[in-house]
Formats: sequence, structure tokens, C-alpha cells
Amino acid sequence: MQRYFLNEDLKDYQNQTISISGDSFHHMIKVMRMKVDHRVYLVTKDQQAFIAKINAIEENKVLLNWVEDDLRQQELPIDVTIASGLPKGDKLDLIVQKGTELGASAFIPFAGSFSITKWDTKKAAKKIERLQKIAQEAAEQSHRTKIPTLQPLASVKQLIEMKEQFDVCLVAYEESAKAGEDQNFVKGLKMLPAGGKLLIVFGPEGGLSKDEVGAFIQNGFLPCALGPRILRTETAPLYALAAASYHFELMHK
Amino acid sequence: MQRYFLNEDLKDYQNQTISISGDSFHHMIKVMRMKVDHRVYLVTKDQQAFIAKINAIEENKVLLNWVEDDLRQQELPIDVTIASGLPKGDKLDLIVQKGTELGASAFIPFAGSFSITKWDTKKAAKKIERLQKIAQEAAEQSHRTKIPTLQPLASVKQLIEMKEQFDVCLVAYEESAKAGEDQNFVKGLKMLPAGGKLLIVFGPEGGLSKDEVGAFIQNGFLPCALGPRILRTETAPLYALAAASYHFELMHK
Repeated sequence: MQRYFLNEDLKDYQNQTISISGDSFHHMIKVMRMKVDHRVYLVTKDQQAFIAKINAIEENKVLLNWVEDDLRQQELPIDVTIASGLPKGDKLDLIVQKGTELGASAFIPFAGSFSITKWDTKKAAKKIERLQKIAQEAAEQSHRTKIPTLQPLASVKQLIEMKEQFDVCLVAYEESAKAGEDQNFVKGLKMLPAGGKLLIVFGPEGGLSKDEVGAFIQNGFLPCALGPRILRTETAPLYALAAASYHFELMHK
Repeated sequence: MQRYFLNEDLKDYQNQTISISGDSFHHMIKVMRMKVDHRVYLVTKDQQAFIAKINAIEENKVLLNWVEDDLRQQELPIDVTIASGLPKGDKLDLIVQKGTELGASAFIPFAGSFSITKWDTKKAAKKIERLQKIAQEAAEQSHRTKIPTLQPLASVKQLIEMKEQFDVCLVAYEESAKAGEDQNFVKGLKMLPAGGKLLIVFGPEGGLSKDEVGAFIQNGFLPCALGPRILRTETAPLYALAAASYHFELMHK
């Protein structure tokens, strides 16, 4: 069953007709060719998910009614924010799409000193908008109740300043992997309180500079390895999210 | 430092000049423009890794000498084989590349009844060869000592017949996720003996048919969910491998 995010909180959705226009209308009626009585999942802006049935199809909107609430818990029990050093090509698309499926809460692209890719201010807004759309589509596809947030391009300094917003901050560091350091990631997950907020920083293809890693560590970020193999910049965040899901959703349920 | 796989076992590599030609020669000298005294990692066919130094560069080959052994353990302590129902487009490339980084031991493409993509016999051999090359490049990049094997295209029947080769067989099943089944994957990992062999089957985009899932389960495959979110066919194997690494390499070290 298809899933669509609404733009409103819609507090009283059980007792009112719900009207959908725009992209979701287009997808339901023009792409999926849905008819009256067809059912879909809808998710309000405050993360209430429910099943709704199509009542009527008008020229530019579709009208639906609530059928039943969907009370399944689809969200990771912790908030994971992925900070990615700007990678080459369309790798950020992959990180956002797969990271959303795997339960990420937010993404922050940042300009690492070894990033070959640069974003100018004009390009940045367009790119964030595009990535936000990828996140929304992946959230619908993976049956989430939350669309991860794409945050504006940050600098390393700005990332470090955000540390107060998080319970635990980690920085993935290839040299940690080479040195056989393999406990900090587990330690980081275990330090998280219920519903806690985790920030994990991943360098671009060339990695983080020694200065950058030093600055993160000095500011309380734990350097961590994600196993002994060297993961590409777009693979490491997916490892971290899958491992967090294994830890909190499969193992410790 | 670059890493190259040798085509030979090369038992006495510490006391002989090692000669490399072909693709690796081309990559070292033409692509990376390496010179005499430059160092690389070499890996023999029986998974011995060591550092070697370039001695001489000839027209079609490069000669190297052993410097020191690389004794780091880069391989997952269990063997994981990923069986993927033929997905659309180039998704199998992604599964093989990322799955290799994440430590997979072998890949088996299979023709699921809901696979839209079909491979004819002529195409299949070419495709396997291409995927084997992707696996080799990813193994070099991620510093592995083993190149995962690409096995020939299988049927569901053939997959089931392979069960005797494995200690534990799992089948990822979306309906398990929806039903809140979330213990079998953990159980499967815990059942594995040291160095054990695990087979995990993933359906194509349309999933596995009820008959296929039924046949797997009847033959002792455990149906399992990989968390509560619906993962795409190319994301689920990456989750399983990352979770296995977290379980065996980070948590239980």
C-alpha cells in the first residue's frame, strides 16, 4: 500500500474529509491510477500514520476518509544525525536515500578540507531542496512516519558548535580502523539515553584532515572505527545506521 | 596505500622477486604512475597480505620484493553468502560493490518469480564476469584479503539444494517485518559456530512469492525481518552485513 506525507498536523483527521492536492495527488491519480475506494497510508506532520480510503477524485484534488490508525513503531528509538563531508558525484543522493530507509533522523552536508566537491551558496539551496525530496520519497517507500531533515551546508566549526544539541557525538576515522580501535562505536551507542540524540561525522573521499579530527576530538567527539575494512564515504553511514538498528531494534527489544 | 590481488598462491613470497603484469601492472604504472621504491599491499590467492616495494619497472611488468607481512584480520569471522533475486537496472552492481566492502564472502544471483529482469544463458556469463570484477575492485579498495565469489545464476530450487553447505540459512521476508517478527535474525547470528557459514536470501523488488517463501521455510530457512522499516532490495543485504559485522567484530570481540 502506498504511503503519503501530509503537509499539515491535521489533529482531527478521524472525523473530517482529508483533501490532497499537488505532488501526492498527481502520484495517486496520474501515476498509480488509483480509483475511489482505493486505500493508502497517510502520515500527518506530527507523525500520526493511518489508513485512509479514497472518497472522491476531483480535477486537482483527491478526497479521503480515515479508516484506521497505523500504530506500528517504524522509527528508530534514537535520533541519528549523519554529517557527511561533501562527496563526489551523486553519492550524497545515495547516502540520503539509503540513510532514510535505514532510519536516519537528519542529514548535514559539510565542507571538509579534503572535499573535492564545493557548493556555492546559490547551488547549495537547490541541492538541499533536491535531497529533501529524495528523503521524502525514501521515507514514503520505507514506511516511515518521519521525513528526515536536510540541514543547510555547515562548516567543521559549525558542526562542532552543534555538539550541545546531541547526547553523543562520534567521528568515523579510518585511522581508528587501521589501529584496531573498535570499541568506541559500541560505547557510543551504549551511552545513549532512551530517545537520545546521536551525531556521527563522516569525512569525504579523502577523509578528514588531522587538524579536523583533532578539533572534533578536542571538543568531545569520540573517534570510532566501523569494523576492520575500509568503507567508502557513502557506505560508512549506512553501516552505522544498520548497526544502530540492530542494536536498538533487533537485539535489545 | 594501494592493494592488489595476485593470481598465485606464491608460497615463498618473502624470498623471491614478485612479477606483476596485466591489469594490476597497468593500474600501478599507467594509472597511479608508481615509481621504483613505491610500496603497495599485495595479497596472495590464499589470503596472505604483505607490503612489497617496487624494484624495477619493465615494459610489461613490474618487479617487487617483500617488505613485511600485514597480519591485520580484515575478514568477517563468519562467511556470509548473499543470494539476491535479480533486481532491476544496475542494482546488483551496488549490492556487490557495497556488499564486498561490508565483508560478504559470496554472491548468488537467482531468478525469483517476481524478478522483472531476466538473464539468458549467454548474458549471464558476461554479467557474472563483470560483477566479479566489481567485487575484486571493491575488495582491493576496502583492504580485504579475500575476493568474494560470484556464483552462477541459480533457481530457487538450486538455492534450496545448497542448504547443506551452510550452518544457518535465512530468508529476508517483508511480511515478517510487518508482523513485527524481529528475533530470527539475531537468533540466526547466535546459532552460527565460529567460522560458520550463513546464507541469506533476498527477494527482487516485487519480493518473494508466497510459494517461494513457503518452500524456503519448509526446507529449514528461517524467515527474518531486518528492523521495522521496509528496505529496498539493494539495501537489505547491506543492513544484514553491517549488522553481522557489528555483532561479530565490534560487540563480541
